[in-house]
Amino acid sequence: MIYFDNSATTRCSDGAMKIMQECLQVNYGNPSSLHKMGYRGKDYLKESRETIASILKCQPKEIYFTSGGTEGNNLAIKGVASAKKRLGNHIITTKIEHASVLNPVKALEKEGFEVTYLGTDEYGVISLDELKAAIREDTILVSIMMVNNEIGSLQPIAEACKIVKKANPDIIFHTDCIQAFGKMSIIPKKLGIDILTVSGHKIHGAKGSGFIYIKDKVRVVPQILGGGHENGMRSGTENVPAIASLGVAAKEAYDNLDRNREHLYAMKSRFIEGIESIDGVTVNGHTGEDSAPQIVSVSIKGNRTRAQVMLNALQDNYGILVSAGSACSSNKPAISETLKSIGLEKDLLERTIRFSFCPENTFEEVDTAIEALKDLVPKMIL
Amino acid sequence: MIYFDNSATTRCSDGAMKIMQECLQVNYGNPSSLHKMGYRGKDYLKESRETIASILKCQPKEIYFTSGGTEGNNLAIKGVASAKKRLGNHIITTKIEHASVLNPVKALEKEGFEVTYLGTDEYGVISLDELKAAIREDTILVSIMMVNNEIGSLQPIAEACKIVKKANPDIIFHTDCIQAFGKMSIIPKKLGIDILTVSGHKIHGAKGSGFIYIKDKVRVVPQILGGGHENGMRSGTENVPAIASLGVAAKEAYDNLDRNREHLYAMKSRFIEGIESIDGVTVNGHTGEDSAPQIVSVSIKGNRTRAQVMLNALQDNYGILVSAGSACSSNKPAISETLKSIGLEKDLLERTIRFSFCPENTFEEVDTAIEALKDLVPKMIL
Repeated sequence: MIYFDNSATTRCSDGAMKIMQECLQVNYGNPSSLHKMGYRGKDYLKESRETIASILKCQPKEIYFTSGGTEGNNLAIKGVASAKKRLGNHIITTKIEHASVLNPVKALEKEGFEVTYLGTDEYGVISLDELKAAIREDTILVSIMMVNNEIGSLQPIAEACKIVKKANPDIIFHTDCIQAFGKMSIIPKKLGIDILTVSGHKIHGAKGSGFIYIKDKVRVVPQILGGGHENGMRSGTENVPAIASLGVAAKEAYDNLDRNREHLYAMKSRFIEGIESIDGVTVNGHTGEDSAPQIVSVSIKGNRTRAQVMLNALQDNYGILVSAGSACSSNKPAISETLKSIGLEKDLLERTIRFSFCPENTFEEVDTAIEALKDLVPKMIL
Repeated sequence: MIYFDNSATTRCSDGAMKIMQECLQVNYGNPSSLHKMGYRGKDYLKESRETIASILKCQPKEIYFTSGGTEGNNLAIKGVASAKKRLGNHIITTKIEHASVLNPVKALEKEGFEVTYLGTDEYGVISLDELKAAIREDTILVSIMMVNNEIGSLQPIAEACKIVKKANPDIIFHTDCIQAFGKMSIIPKKLGIDILTVSGHKIHGAKGSGFIYIKDKVRVVPQILGGGHENGMRSGTENVPAIASLGVAAKEAYDNLDRNREHLYAMKSRFIEGIESIDGVTVNGHTGEDSAPQIVSVSIKGNRTRAQVMLNALQDNYGILVSAGSACSSNKPAISETLKSIGLEKDLLERTIRFSFCPENTFEEVDTAIEALKDLVPKMIL
């Protein structure tokens, strides 16, 4: 089996798994318990928080653990809107955000907030001029994802931050880094980011793990209330095993960042080179280092090339697992806003599949996928 | 080491651990992925949902997985308030709820809701007459926990439901079952419950697992928005390993319910019998089968019997781990509302520790704890 669906979720790494088991069965204390098992639980939280802080070059207290990317994005959007609502009523985001940003934003729209949705060019990249023009006196929040989950487009976050902060330093800048973290260096202070969200299971950590970075002194209203865990930002007994796994996975990703990026880009280039000459095949978005290293979005013209058909054929005949769309919307394959935004012709919207790699994938697997498409596409195109 | 802090958290069972590892490293697909790894992920969700539904004798679609008890209680309280706010403005709860109920309720109070907090008798049990008198025309929600986490008092949920529904069948009845699930039979339809919340890590499942039962057709406004997972009630990639572990742990608890209850009550009786004759020792709440089987709250008169001192002495000299207070409030040991509510004398509020058992604990461990208190208390009392 060749697993090319790593942007949907990844296999938990052996290191992450080992520490989970340790936290679930050996040092399983509740970090709020004031005995040695509790203190040991607290140590795991501290260690993981420090690991992540050192990766982001931020303070440990700026890291708050969550149950994952969706919770983090909800907390960022709703928490900032709630904290800032007396100062303004306007939010800027993009048309190609993940549902966990778009749906909270839409809920706020129903409550009376006004929202500007930025479009993109044909490569899935926003226009900085459009962003600049969208900023209003009552803008309180800008949320732009770092890497798009469907086509891997990279947004100009540093430049976007600069524009926003120049217009009004009080506007909060949030970026969904769920597909970016572990794949590139992210230093929020350097980029100008106030809040960023990350999920653990996209980087070989456990499902149910994630964190939100909130810059010191930026106010976010907590959304889950209770015992005051995570310095009051997120109540609930800390998910020590998941948090520990996230720390391990993050360390593994960043200790090997250069090597992994090189390998991912090499696989991506090789794959694109191998398939772009196939009749009917289009690769969406940028294809070089101006795009994310792990994602290749492929549209295929033809009568029998609907995503689910291609996906089944790749699985059944070649053992290759890929996604139709982004695999993050449960059971409701809707037409992708991202693909619409890059102006993909209507016919191809349902004829697009996503290959997403992880560092453990090999050139041999990539070659198998190339051969599979070379073999399969001509049969399906008729 | 003797672990008597099972109401804070439990060791993950071997069965629950095994399925977690399987879901994290073997069948690790995202249930939204439309390939065989995704379908396998979905199977785990289905199986776990069906296991829990068969325990509660409800429909599988009435079970929604969450990241734990605190998220579940927040969803219940805020989700019902949001769904019902046009119909009324009044909420009834108790003074002895967990912070994950009390703090969402207090947040709603700040937003303009009116709240009645029911008191308890000296055993920590609410008065049904007080409940009846508290119901108003604009009452929309009643939230009463099934088992108190600090002293193990059992609330008369069936009778309370009857009173509430007789007064107005549209009032939603929620019960926090976090300390009750796995320890007693809970059939929401029979009891008259509309919504109940459960946490996995209190029953030897994984931290970060939990579910909320919402009776068919009861409207709750989702609090975490995104890809529409859990039938739109809770977005975010499903935490398959944690959910699978919860199913296994729930099955283990209910397959052995009678035997476990008998053993827990036997340990509780033996412990109470062994310590109640010690000078200065008081056991709080009911002590027989009119209380929860796993919790014993002990107050100790004396100059050197502050909870943290006793806890350290029990740990360091006898290897026994217990809690001061409920261990669910992070790092902020506040004076317990539960202990105040039962009228504990002021001096004892900070001199109370909680022993909480699990079915794997033994009579030998209980005897060690009895001997420890017999040895320790006379030294500390002076």
